[in-house]
Amino acid sequence: MDYEAFFDSEIAGLHREGRYRVFTDLERQAGRYPYATHHSPAGEREVTVWCSNDYLGMGQHPAVVGAMHEAIERCGAGAGGTRNISGTNHYHVLLEQELADLHGKEAALIFSSGYVSNWAALGTLGSKLPGCVIFSDEGNHASMIEGIRSSRAERQIFRHNDPEDLNRKLSLIEPGRAKLVAFESVYSMDGDIAPIDEICDVAEAHGALTYLDEVHAVGLYGARGGGISERMGLAHRLDVIEGTLGKAFAVHGGYITGSNRLCDFVRSFASGFIFTTSLPPAVAAGAAASIRHLKGSGVERARHQERVAKVRQALDAAGIPVLANRSHIVPVMVGDPVLCKAISDSLLDEFGIYVQPINYPTVPRGTERLRITPSPLHSNADIDHLVDALSTIWSRIGLSRQAAE
Amino acid sequence: MDYEAFFDSEIAGLHREGRYRVFTDLERQAGRYPYATHHSPAGEREVTVWCSNDYLGMGQHPAVVGAMHEAIERCGAGAGGTRNISGTNHYHVLLEQELADLHGKEAALIFSSGYVSNWAALGTLGSKLPGCVIFSDEGNHASMIEGIRSSRAERQIFRHNDPEDLNRKLSLIEPGRAKLVAFESVYSMDGDIAPIDEICDVAEAHGALTYLDEVHAVGLYGARGGGISERMGLAHRLDVIEGTLGKAFAVHGGYITGSNRLCDFVRSFASGFIFTTSLPPAVAAGAAASIRHLKGSGVERARHQERVAKVRQALDAAGIPVLANRSHIVPVMVGDPVLCKAISDSLLDEFGIYVQPINYPTVPRGTERLRITPSPLHSNADIDHLVDALSTIWSRIGLSRQAAE
Ligand SMILES: Cc1ncc(COP(=O)(O)O)c(C=O)c1O
Ligand SMILES: Cc1ncc(COP(=O)(O)O)c(C=O)c1O
Repeated sequence: MDYEAFFDSEIAGLHREGRYRVFTDLERQAGRYPYATHHSPAGEREVTVWCSNDYLGMGQHPAVVGAMHEAIERCGAGAGGTRNISGTNHYHVLLEQELADLHGKEAALIFSSGYVSNWAALGTLGSKLPGCVIFSDEGNHASMIEGIRSSRAERQIFRHNDPEDLNRKLSLIEPGRAKLVAFESVYSMDGDIAPIDEICDVAEAHGALTYLDEVHAVGLYGARGGGISERMGLAHRLDVIEGTLGKAFAVHGGYITGSNRLCDFVRSFASGFIFTTSLPPAVAAGAAASIRHLKGSGVERARHQERVAKVRQALDAAGIPVLANRSHIVPVMVGDPVLCKAISDSLLDEFGIYVQPINYPTVPRGTERLRITPSPLHSNADIDHLVDALSTIWSRIGLSRQAAE
Repeated sequence: MDYEAFFDSEIAGLHREGRYRVFTDLERQAGRYPYATHHSPAGEREVTVWCSNDYLGMGQHPAVVGAMHEAIERCGAGAGGTRNISGTNHYHVLLEQELADLHGKEAALIFSSGYVSNWAALGTLGSKLPGCVIFSDEGNHASMIEGIRSSRAERQIFRHNDPEDLNRKLSLIEPGRAKLVAFESVYSMDGDIAPIDEICDVAEAHGALTYLDEVHAVGLYGARGGGISERMGLAHRLDVIEGTLGKAFAVHGGYITGSNRLCDFVRSFASGFIFTTSLPPAVAAGAAASIRHLKGSGVERARHQERVAKVRQALDAAGIPVLANRSHIVPVMVGDPVLCKAISDSLLDEFGIYVQPINYPTVPRGTERLRITPSPLHSNADIDHLVDALSTIWSRIGLSRQAAE
């Protein structure tokens, strides 16, 4: 077996499909977001970032940055151990309290990342709950899919955001069995929003646990940033609310919140929680500061929504095809991996605008797109520059326009 | 299905077995390692930490702490995206270069943690290499076991540190099939060291890839901290060397190093690498500074080994039963979860010494232990205090002593 040749041919396949990924080497500039330094073979250059998941620019907020500096001064660099073996730091304890409060739950549990929180929590619940069947929205994120897969529980995939299909599938399972419904509030690539209330109605009627991924909503929606479930007054109907500390909260890590018993159960049995070094104290401190700030301040959220609307308007006016949704995610649809990369390259090289092309496996083939994420810190001039650039490229390549509605 | 009652009864089972885990809420004190503040219901108190995996105390090293402060000043809190979508920061690129150089490999790839690096790399190699069989040491860490399990590759478990058994098992597999041998250099709970050269001989004879976890060795062994494989001059014989940034390097994260093609392959196909926010720039910067320092400085390693020898000597002289090994890990064997926890509680409450009891599933039942990790920063007085405290408890409980060798 020639391993190197095998790797080579697999990578050649990616090149052939036009979906080989080249990472863009950036240096973020604290205080200058959304601008960053692009390190390329041709040298360094300032670019405007239009695809960050630091949705609100909290990564440079003085409260967050200050809390991280302070925690490093007090506690040093890392946690030094797993949660059980010397690695529980007081900042972890405070962060878990902050998160439980954010979602109005009894308890919270933090993980290395949002990915690990989904993988470990769903994996543990699905494998330990006797005879568990997991009902998974067909649009669920890779981390949930992997968690469900690793649980080896019976899996039923229901149609995207379709409570009726969920109901049909739940009706086929014996009433006494453990059941769990896993879904997201804001789907990250299309930006559409789940009918959480209806899904909860269906789950409740069948005695199923509800597990909601609010990764792309926490910090961004609800009076205190508790996500779509807070905005709709539904947090109490969800057994687990899962989120990340790495997007709107702008630091790193993931979490679940739920009842004391559920969190204690996952804490006690999840391999991905137990056997790994806990987050650095400074990461926990920065995340807690970010959450705390966004609980008390709505200006970032309001400005965010206003900027999103403005970008959509400008793109619509220019006839650039954008997927309609009610969230902050603005997908400009291209539908071809090679073209999508070419547009992204032009934006970067000619216009100093960075929007990563999104291709398979992150989105289905044929739906390749530029996923634009406006922030409160993008100026009118930034927006004009983006839309002018896209318009220029659209004309040059002869892409079809879409009539403004 | 009454979910809360189910969680309750599972947790009650842990209590009954004496292995319910209570986390020790610590506040590390930068500049005062190995001392930390213990937050307990009874109040705050200073304790001496004897079970940290910040093996060298690098978590408070000025080079590490300084690099983190600087990166926060420059780049802010988090990376803001996945590696592919705006989350590759220049600090990640520099860290991967530092790691490839550390192990003399062409390339490196960083992950959220050492756990994720094992899970994602083994999962990807095992599932994508056609017809792959993975040979796994029976003592391998949970993260490797989960990775192999998730790959769904055929798995063969060979006897711990036993190249002959490995050879026997390899001989039974058709020559043309893809094969991978996964093992560790220093096993974290017993502290024993693998016969890397013999395992490489066997693997090579059968055309198998070699995958070595050096999590408990990087920074600690070898002239530049490249681990046991560096000390034995064997790094070039390993296809993958995996490690953590969260133990001797004292920050957070994990990595693999290997050939360009292998790393590009894992980079391109591993779900656990692709679909997750990358590490904060400051974490990457701190880890790189730690690695760089330990490449150039051997004093921490020398003092570490000297302290370990001194602790062993003192425990031997007192007749406290310690598992013999050639590493820096000093397991004091107890063999019962309830007793182990009682000893740990006494150490903490009466003597201000923190050593977490280690129980199932971290170690097999019946081998419960206190896992002591001396650091270069533990003083003679700290050692005397530890051994006196253990001796007092040993006498009081009437535990058997072991004749000094
Ligand atoms: C829906 C969803 N869930 C979970 C995650 C993982 O969160 P994290 O980036 O913190 O690992 C992501 C993206 O990364 C996501 O889009
Ligand atoms: C042998 C081994 N491999 C991997 C890991 C995981 O590394 P990390 O703590 O960085 O997740 C650990 C311990 O945590 C370990 O003991």
